[in-house]
Amino acid sequence: MSTRYDLNRAEILRVSAELFARSGYHGTGIADLGTAVGLGRGALYHYIGSKEEVLFAISSRQLAQMNDVADELALTEPNPERRLRGLARALLRNIAEHRAEWTVFFREYHALTGDRRARVVAARERYESHWRHAFDQGVRDGVFTLLPPLMIKGVLGMFNYSYLWLTADGARTPEEIADGFLDALITGLAAPNP
Amino acid sequence: MSTRYDLNRAEILRVSAELFARSGYHGTGIADLGTAVGLGRGALYHYIGSKEEVLFAISSRQLAQMNDVADELALTEPNPERRLRGLARALLRNIAEHRAEWTVFFREYHALTGDRRARVVAARERYESHWRHAFDQGVRDGVFTLLPPLMIKGVLGMFNYSYLWLTADGARTPEEIADGFLDALITGLAAPNP
Repeated sequence: MSTRYDLNRAEILRVSAELFARSGYHGTGIADLGTAVGLGRGALYHYIGSKEEVLFAISSRQLAQMNDVADELALTEPNPERRLRGLARALLRNIAEHRAEWTVFFREYHALTGDRRARVVAARERYESHWRHAFDQGVRDGVFTLLPPLMIKGVLGMFNYSYLWLTADGARTPEEIADGFLDALITGLAAPNP
Repeated sequence: MSTRYDLNRAEILRVSAELFARSGYHGTGIADLGTAVGLGRGALYHYIGSKEEVLFAISSRQLAQMNDVADELALTEPNPERRLRGLARALLRNIAEHRAEWTVFFREYHALTGDRRARVVAARERYESHWRHAFDQGVRDGVFTLLPPLMIKGVLGMFNYSYLWLTADGARTPEEIADGFLDALITGLAAPNP
């Protein structure tokens, strides 16, 4: 159950993500955050300890949700193609609904320091490994061919980069776009032989 | 022929790209640039009019080179698959050799304003259209299947996103990686039927 404190903190993070996405992490001061949410410095510090803590919370939250989805799929979906489809759909849906957060993550996470940075990098690597394991299993099952070197990063780039253009209210749903991308990746773009 | 002025300006831009990539555009002051290149404010302004002009020069330069390559390929390479290969190889080579510039472009171009921003966006759209035209021609020639909606953005994401991990001195050359990605895209990841 969410407490009033949790709800207020979530709202502060949401507004901060929009500010960081618009003006950059370094271009946004704690005072700007306070003004945007209507809190003085003291009240703001009741919810967040530092600007870097805000960046960490924004950068790690969506990624944590995607790792939760991936953990669940790893347990429940033995078919590697369907698991990839679940990963891709959930990722594009989340990016479409949290573009500011993903924009901040992709553009600004490198501004994190020390343990916070290490934790975000580890979460990103764990997420990448979920995709890699699904492809590897597809190879073992005889349904996928061996991926070329570094292709897993290319595949993730294909989906991640959508933070630049994806919207939740476009002509096609994020799930339809995810399916189209995956179909093309699996089937290939070569015209079928006559 | 490069003049001493051009060489000095190019060096200022190179150092600035590294500073912006490390500390962010908003996190780097004109004074930091001056210190890094060993020039006082007056001497620096001899080469660059403003910090935004530096960001514009960094963000537009590599893209302009890639559009030059694409223009040349459009004139000289009628085969759409070979044209795509030329585009992909040149892009990954350029990203590998100018990672700081591409990092700044991808993370910071949105900080540009007015005409500068419009010009960078237009150059990016022109570059994307080169890729789209090559795929469209492949469809007309009967060698490619119709791309799913927005797939061209996915394809570019696959290659562009390499600014995060690509190096010029890795185990595989950028050209080998580009070929591997394109082969996989064209052939698909499904295991061949026995």
